[in-house]
Amino acid sequence: MTPGFGERLAEHVARRRSQLVLGLDPDPTRLWPAAPGPGEDAPPHDAQPLVRDDATAPTAASRAASAVVSHCGRVMAAVAPQCVAVKLQVACFERLGAAGWSALASAIAIARDHGLLVIADAKRGDIDVTARAYAEAFFGGAQTPFGPVPGLGVDALTVNALLGEDSVMPLLQGARAGGAGLFVLVRTSNPGAALIQDRVLDDGGTVSDALADLVRELGEAGTGPAGIADVGAVVGATVPGHLARLREAMPAAPLLLPGVGAQGGAVSALTPAFAPGRAGGLVAVSRGLVYAFEKAGGDPADAAREEASRLRALAWSLTGDA
Amino acid sequence: MTPGFGERLAEHVARRRSQLVLGLDPDPTRLWPAAPGPGEDAPPHDAQPLVRDDATAPTAASRAASAVVSHCGRVMAAVAPQCVAVKLQVACFERLGAAGWSALASAIAIARDHGLLVIADAKRGDIDVTARAYAEAFFGGAQTPFGPVPGLGVDALTVNALLGEDSVMPLLQGARAGGAGLFVLVRTSNPGAALIQDRVLDDGGTVSDALADLVRELGEAGTGPAGIADVGAVVGATVPGHLARLREAMPAAPLLLPGVGAQGGAVSALTPAFAPGRAGGLVAVSRGLVYAFEKAGGDPADAAREEASRLRALAWSLTGDA
Repeated sequence: MTPGFGERLAEHVARRRSQLVLGLDPDPTRLWPAAPGPGEDAPPHDAQPLVRDDATAPTAASRAASAVVSHCGRVMAAVAPQCVAVKLQVACFERLGAAGWSALASAIAIARDHGLLVIADAKRGDIDVTARAYAEAFFGGAQTPFGPVPGLGVDALTVNALLGEDSVMPLLQGARAGGAGLFVLVRTSNPGAALIQDRVLDDGGTVSDALADLVRELGEAGTGPAGIADVGAVVGATVPGHLARLREAMPAAPLLLPGVGAQGGAVSALTPAFAPGRAGGLVAVSRGLVYAFEKAGGDPADAAREEASRLRALAWSLTGDA
Repeated sequence: MTPGFGERLAEHVARRRSQLVLGLDPDPTRLWPAAPGPGEDAPPHDAQPLVRDDATAPTAASRAASAVVSHCGRVMAAVAPQCVAVKLQVACFERLGAAGWSALASAIAIARDHGLLVIADAKRGDIDVTARAYAEAFFGGAQTPFGPVPGLGVDALTVNALLGEDSVMPLLQGARAGGAGLFVLVRTSNPGAALIQDRVLDDGGTVSDALADLVRELGEAGTGPAGIADVGAVVGATVPGHLARLREAMPAAPLLLPGVGAQGGAVSALTPAFAPGRAGGLVAVSRGLVYAFEKAGGDPADAAREEASRLRALAWSLTGDA
């Protein structure tokens, strides 16, 4: 039997001695300088030739997608040794259409080569029959009369549970079948999150608390000896005031903590996340690593590597010797 | 200046004399019988050649995607004259990967040929910078150093606003730039929707009511002479008890009403939706049309056409002569 996601996550964190997650939100207008410019082509990743829209001439989309894969590959090469996982922002690939979807598959293949767990940040959520289709897309693929169509095979997917438990269950079933997991949005990092998520319910808790209850309940059946569930939560690092309360409501959930750096969150405020163990908190940093050179100067890879090293040690030191 | 989505919707509804929306959630295992079976290829839609994963041999994904396009084309050919719009379930295309994303573009092109408005049912929602990327994907495309990458150019997108107003605004800006609109999830049609959406807040309203307030506020600047806003709401036809209250909270919002048929909703219960005019309610039917032949017998196209004709007349009669 495949070990559950919580077990796999705990093992990865311990082995790689890192709780740092590289966020990749590739913007074709802000790729690392050495990525191919207009008129040049990057060679696609060996394992996953890029789709061309018309099977012959490259289009703007296929060229942008190739450059995005090249960029993602170089960022991963720079910082992967400091990281336990990569979080791929699916929107940034979807805007390149079919070529972007192929680029996403290529970026996943590169992450595997570096031994990184892969989190698809797609924030999906829909009614049961549709949630099953998303589970096929992101996890194990679809059986069709034309043959099996592979899914992206990610290790975890971010999920929006506004539609309730019956919208999450098909995703969880799809995830568990392959030892993968979910991160349910509980309290996001953006300023507008307060509008709905912080609203107080008639039982005295907030909408975020209700989502946290769902995370705890769904994860109970998926918590193994390491004490980390296979249903985690997204809790913004920008709202440390919520962290202790939400950790109490979800004692075994791994918390995916975006918002450090560009969004203003600080690693040192994240201590409550690590209550169930080192894999209890995953510090997701995107722009703070990729664009570290804009502040630090010098080579983008060197600046990213140094910042990743600093953040890895900082997070690790919150739970013992760095 | 491009007319706003509310104006365009009202014009389409009046001209086509229909409030019926064909939902397409194509399942490769349940395509109409005459679609190509295993080992056969359907010719791709002329305007949008299908992507091949490796530019040469067809894969299971590209064959399934071709068959899905063919199926969608035949369903639209059967029922488009009875409909004002098509609602494409993005998950069903995403599960076919890059080829599925091309199939989605092809299905959109076919819908345009039939004069249908196109609603992408993707339920997206994310923080600002990411929401802008989704806006590029679904509406006007992305400007890149490699040239402009076209977006899907849909007329409307379904949106999950759990992340608040700052997650919706970039989508709305992207939509408005091309006369498109949004449908924000307010009360979905599934049984589990109650878990979060029906929770009572300390102000006495529910989470759905708070979402409805947001819909009204966002749509005020986008309501033209026809009295229909460019920010609509998804309200399940399965919960008619909520409809009058939510209509009152969002007087100008077009309501996208899924759940008639397979999910148990009845057209006759939808009268409050049409308070602002005939374009105030859009009756979205998916399985009830596509699989009408399983109940009625006979040819799938004939059964779908008859059921579409019946539902169109039924909805139209709620607001005057059918």
